[in-house]
Amino acid sequence: MKPVDTAMANAFVAGKVPLSPQTEQLISDRARLLGPAYRLMYEEPLHFVKGEGVWLIDANGRRYLDAYNNVTSLGHCHPAVVEAIARQAGILATNTRYLQDGILQLAETLLATMPEEPGHMMLTCTGSEANDLAWRIARGFSGGTGIVVTQTAYHGITDAVAQYSPSLGPSVDLGRHVALVPAPGDPGAEGPDGFAEAVEYAIAGLRRHGIRPAMLIVDTMFTSDGVRAGPTGFLAPAVEAIRRAGGLFVADEVQPGFARTGERFWGFQRHGVMPDIVTMGKPMGNGHPVAGIVVRPQVVDEFGRNARYFNTFGGNTVSCAAALAVLNVIARDGLQANSLAMGQRLMEGLRSLAGRYPILAELRGAGLMIGAEIRSGGQPDREATARIVNGMRAEGVLISSCGKHHNVLKIRPPLIIDAAQVDLFTETLGRVLEGVSA
Amino acid sequence: MKPVDTAMANAFVAGKVPLSPQTEQLISDRARLLGPAYRLMYEEPLHFVKGEGVWLIDANGRRYLDAYNNVTSLGHCHPAVVEAIARQAGILATNTRYLQDGILQLAETLLATMPEEPGHMMLTCTGSEANDLAWRIARGFSGGTGIVVTQTAYHGITDAVAQYSPSLGPSVDLGRHVALVPAPGDPGAEGPDGFAEAVEYAIAGLRRHGIRPAMLIVDTMFTSDGVRAGPTGFLAPAVEAIRRAGGLFVADEVQPGFARTGERFWGFQRHGVMPDIVTMGKPMGNGHPVAGIVVRPQVVDEFGRNARYFNTFGGNTVSCAAALAVLNVIARDGLQANSLAMGQRLMEGLRSLAGRYPILAELRGAGLMIGAEIRSGGQPDREATARIVNGMRAEGVLISSCGKHHNVLKIRPPLIIDAAQVDLFTETLGRVLEGVSA
Repeated sequence: MKPVDTAMANAFVAGKVPLSPQTEQLISDRARLLGPAYRLMYEEPLHFVKGEGVWLIDANGRRYLDAYNNVTSLGHCHPAVVEAIARQAGILATNTRYLQDGILQLAETLLATMPEEPGHMMLTCTGSEANDLAWRIARGFSGGTGIVVTQTAYHGITDAVAQYSPSLGPSVDLGRHVALVPAPGDPGAEGPDGFAEAVEYAIAGLRRHGIRPAMLIVDTMFTSDGVRAGPTGFLAPAVEAIRRAGGLFVADEVQPGFARTGERFWGFQRHGVMPDIVTMGKPMGNGHPVAGIVVRPQVVDEFGRNARYFNTFGGNTVSCAAALAVLNVIARDGLQANSLAMGQRLMEGLRSLAGRYPILAELRGAGLMIGAEIRSGGQPDREATARIVNGMRAEGVLISSCGKHHNVLKIRPPLIIDAAQVDLFTETLGRVLEGVSA
Repeated sequence: MKPVDTAMANAFVAGKVPLSPQTEQLISDRARLLGPAYRLMYEEPLHFVKGEGVWLIDANGRRYLDAYNNVTSLGHCHPAVVEAIARQAGILATNTRYLQDGILQLAETLLATMPEEPGHMMLTCTGSEANDLAWRIARGFSGGTGIVVTQTAYHGITDAVAQYSPSLGPSVDLGRHVALVPAPGDPGAEGPDGFAEAVEYAIAGLRRHGIRPAMLIVDTMFTSDGVRAGPTGFLAPAVEAIRRAGGLFVADEVQPGFARTGERFWGFQRHGVMPDIVTMGKPMGNGHPVAGIVVRPQVVDEFGRNARYFNTFGGNTVSCAAALAVLNVIARDGLQANSLAMGQRLMEGLRSLAGRYPILAELRGAGLMIGAEIRSGGQPDREATARIVNGMRAEGVLISSCGKHHNVLKIRPPLIIDAAQVDLFTETLGRVLEGVSA
């Protein structure tokens, strides 16, 4: 088995292709002002100045079909969200230590999307903070510290969360309390019970090191692991296993949530399980920094009484207005149904391409969250994947890659995409695959 | 010595005073929807619906002079910031993996406020994330894990940062790698060298437990410790001590920063020291979630090359526009000078009240960051402090309390406050002190 490739997928590397003097200048200004920790995407980085629906527009006026950014899930600069932010920012921007109406309206609306009630909503600013809070609550509730995550998981960048985000690479130490399991379907977690067995094995390993399990946390679409959508149901026995061991099941819905999978509003619903904690972020404010958790009351009861939670910006009036506008637009415009329909159309297009180009070796996904595995001679082909991603960029379509071998195309258009735009995507990919396969 | 009081200062406690049916309803809805971890302020919580300059307006249309919220430092709903947010949200809200102009403009402007160059700016969404990142960088650079903080410090609520925020109380475990020092001026840290000696003692304690020091982090106005403004210069030998021990000095400017102290733009400048990392947040976006760090290049060099940093919302185009607007307004409107002048006027008013009301036992501060210690018979008087804070609220002025005995009035009006509003504050406090002293 090839080792996991831990460099950042689709990162810009200086010197690979010639760049315009303007781009060189911006990159050197970034290095001078922002330092070495920031990364750009693509062989030739992009400089955007405008967003509009499914389009991002660069400094030269060129339009790119954005099939990558899952934050702006309603499309760039959605007028209802922009209006809600502008209006509320002009009325009141304050915190949760005063009574406010907006946060309660948001909570009612958000909690109503959950299949079970009651639950409590707590708000943060980022998905990292949401997963950090989930971890604090899980540790307090379970009395344990052990965490089970998948091999290429990404859950965030606070110190605690980076310790259980193996996709950050070997320079970021995993905690000794963190046990890795193969992604569902990978060797060691194959078949309908394979993932649950891998989780049980990881729990046993923690115990043998004297570590009590606190939680199993997974992105319910396993996005960073290369998108693992099915067979639905495989999560249920894994959830039972962590609960039997005294730990909680945390569903990281930062990527699958908010109707992206089309089939359901939340990714965990596809597996017929109810998490103890649901974490969410990215599309929650369509670009505005808002994130949070929904938690079973009994799980947060003791934590909440003893260890108050206050996040200065989390749950501020403007963030609540943005998040409420997002939920209202998804419902009003039937975006979950659109995600399902357009996701099916896109998958059909991809299947037909796969028939012509065997390099498109496996297609996985639900709704508008799709992973397309690139293999040559049966082996993961990272290089071809990079050529496809950069080729798409050259043709004006944005995607990226993921998976432990960086050989999975990560395709995530906004939920508002229409049939013509889906077809444009498929046609463009066909042209690029033709070039790569030639 | 009385033990440190670790409950939340100025928290609402149900049943203390009768509330309106509307307030009862909102509180019960909050408990149902948001759970037990959220806290409200004041004996009778406030329900705000509008903010305007120095004023917050409640659901009954009553106006409160806001001398507490240091986030909305330019005043509530400052038109230049609201306009910057609204405009940029309508143009483009995207992340740092594309080239953008706004983040570079912001970095140039922000870094120019620093007394030494060069430095790198890195952006997060919250002060907690900024302090979390500073800790990750300090640990990587120093090879140590020891942290020195003051006894009642508050630095944030991520798991790692909560572990070095003792003001959260005994339900939130401090890390074993965290050593506490008394606040400057407190027993054990008295006199001009007292704080540095306490830091050296804490470093020696860490070493005796086999822990290598990574950083000394302080709020440079020691806000949660009850505001410790002087004598300026006492930080310098403490900074030397942590550096001699191989650790970094991190200035938490989340509260003192952005011209609040009047004398200088940053709190650390008052002490003539240059931090290795400066963390910032709260007023940075005047209510919009933006925060970050400025770090010496050599300190972040290895971390940046090995452990990339990406924060989905951190440094997004809208947050950068908000933060740039804040810096521009501070410069254009001379708000640092106003903070100095109004702070002096306020301090004079408080001094005159202290002459009449001995309960106002000690006044400390710089610019518009003032702590007023309440003592009766030489002892900290928490109860009188609470009566003053709630009395001020009843009279339409917002302040709160801080310090390890919860006996320090925390006074932080917006930087735009004018002379008449300062005088209104002082007159109101005089009336309230008259009542409390009667």
